[in-house]
Amino acid sequence: MDAPEFQRARSPEAKRLREAAILTAARSLGHERGIRDVTLTDIAAAVGMHKSALLRYFETREEIFLRLTAEGWAEWSQALTARLRETAEPGPAAVARAFAATLAARGMFCDLLAHAPLNLERNVSLDAVREFKLATLAARVPIAAAVREQLPALDEQDVVDLVATAVSLAGALWQIANPGAEVAALYRGDPRLAHAVVEVEPRLARVLTATVTGLVAGRPEPRP
Amino acid sequence: MDAPEFQRARSPEAKRLREAAILTAARSLGHERGIRDVTLTDIAAAVGMHKSALLRYFETREEIFLRLTAEGWAEWSQALTARLRETAEPGPAAVARAFAATLAARGMFCDLLAHAPLNLERNVSLDAVREFKLATLAARVPIAAAVREQLPALDEQDVVDLVATAVSLAGALWQIANPGAEVAALYRGDPRLAHAVVEVEPRLARVLTATVTGLVAGRPEPRP
Repeated sequence: MDAPEFQRARSPEAKRLREAAILTAARSLGHERGIRDVTLTDIAAAVGMHKSALLRYFETREEIFLRLTAEGWAEWSQALTARLRETAEPGPAAVARAFAATLAARGMFCDLLAHAPLNLERNVSLDAVREFKLATLAARVPIAAAVREQLPALDEQDVVDLVATAVSLAGALWQIANPGAEVAALYRGDPRLAHAVVEVEPRLARVLTATVTGLVAGRPEPRP
Repeated sequence: MDAPEFQRARSPEAKRLREAAILTAARSLGHERGIRDVTLTDIAAAVGMHKSALLRYFETREEIFLRLTAEGWAEWSQALTARLRETAEPGPAAVARAFAATLAARGMFCDLLAHAPLNLERNVSLDAVREFKLATLAARVPIAAAVREQLPALDEQDVVDLVATAVSLAGALWQIANPGAEVAALYRGDPRLAHAVVEVEPRLARVLTATVTGLVAGRPEPRP
């Protein structure tokens, strides 16, 4: 069932271009429909390849989306560190707002953040998981440096906790805020369900402001 | 393809018992394998029913797990409010530890909390979503009352944010802490991946202590 020879990417450069085209198609479909509803067949169709040919570049749909998640981490890390460094009045609220604004502006990244540990890391090779984890680790380094420039009181563990909290909450809140058209209409139509309507950025900003304030204030009890 | 007449639950009581048996089987499989890996066929086999017969009681596997999530909220709410009320020295750290300990002790509930908005609310009827949302709302009421007894400085919005933060983080951290045997071995085996090894309870306790401390300290800026 191989595709004809002329369809194969023969040089490393051609292979790279083919991979980039696949990632572009997946990114665009993910934006449009949400990660959950994009299949490998959809991606192959959008990029104009046979599914069997696509599988020579990525082992599963999860590997494609895990690559987009890693890419999202690198891009967000740049945007967040730039924003943190241009903050005029540093402080817990400014740091929290920088996290909230940069995450809320990246809906598909938030979507991916929720899917990564649940679904994406579970249907790929160990090599793909390792590569993904190292990429997210690399993206955290400049974030930690920029946060500690703004808030020197925080230690390394504080910043690890803050980043983990921000991305976990952003992923979860984005899912709750984007439940699909029918369920969204249900929430809006029933006043008892008003609590189910969530706006990602203000809630994230409120919670992270409290978290950073508490981290800076120090723990009420000494660390174990 | 109907099952023979004698297999059907003919009275409301018999129907209720059949439903309870299905939920018990799903609960036990979910504990054992994690929600992600339990299919409707597995549940039917465990309860000794044909899949077609099971579908007379629940429309999808997602509906079964959404029911278990609602049940989990009610049970956790009771445990948390009891624990909050027996706290000898109230304060942000004690409230945070009560959330962290009661959530970390309920692994399958944490697993369900992550799956609910991503996967479970998306393959059920609107009636099932409404019923689920009202159940979680009811479970939040006593939690909010107990938290505000301990920390009268907090307002309603603070407690809504705190509960949303606690359950979102518990769901996300549990998924990260339980990545499947192969990936867990990878994390332990590669020192560069040490950051990927997460312990749910201490991290949740640290982050929530900071969050509650910050909420009590009040926001550094007036509310918009």
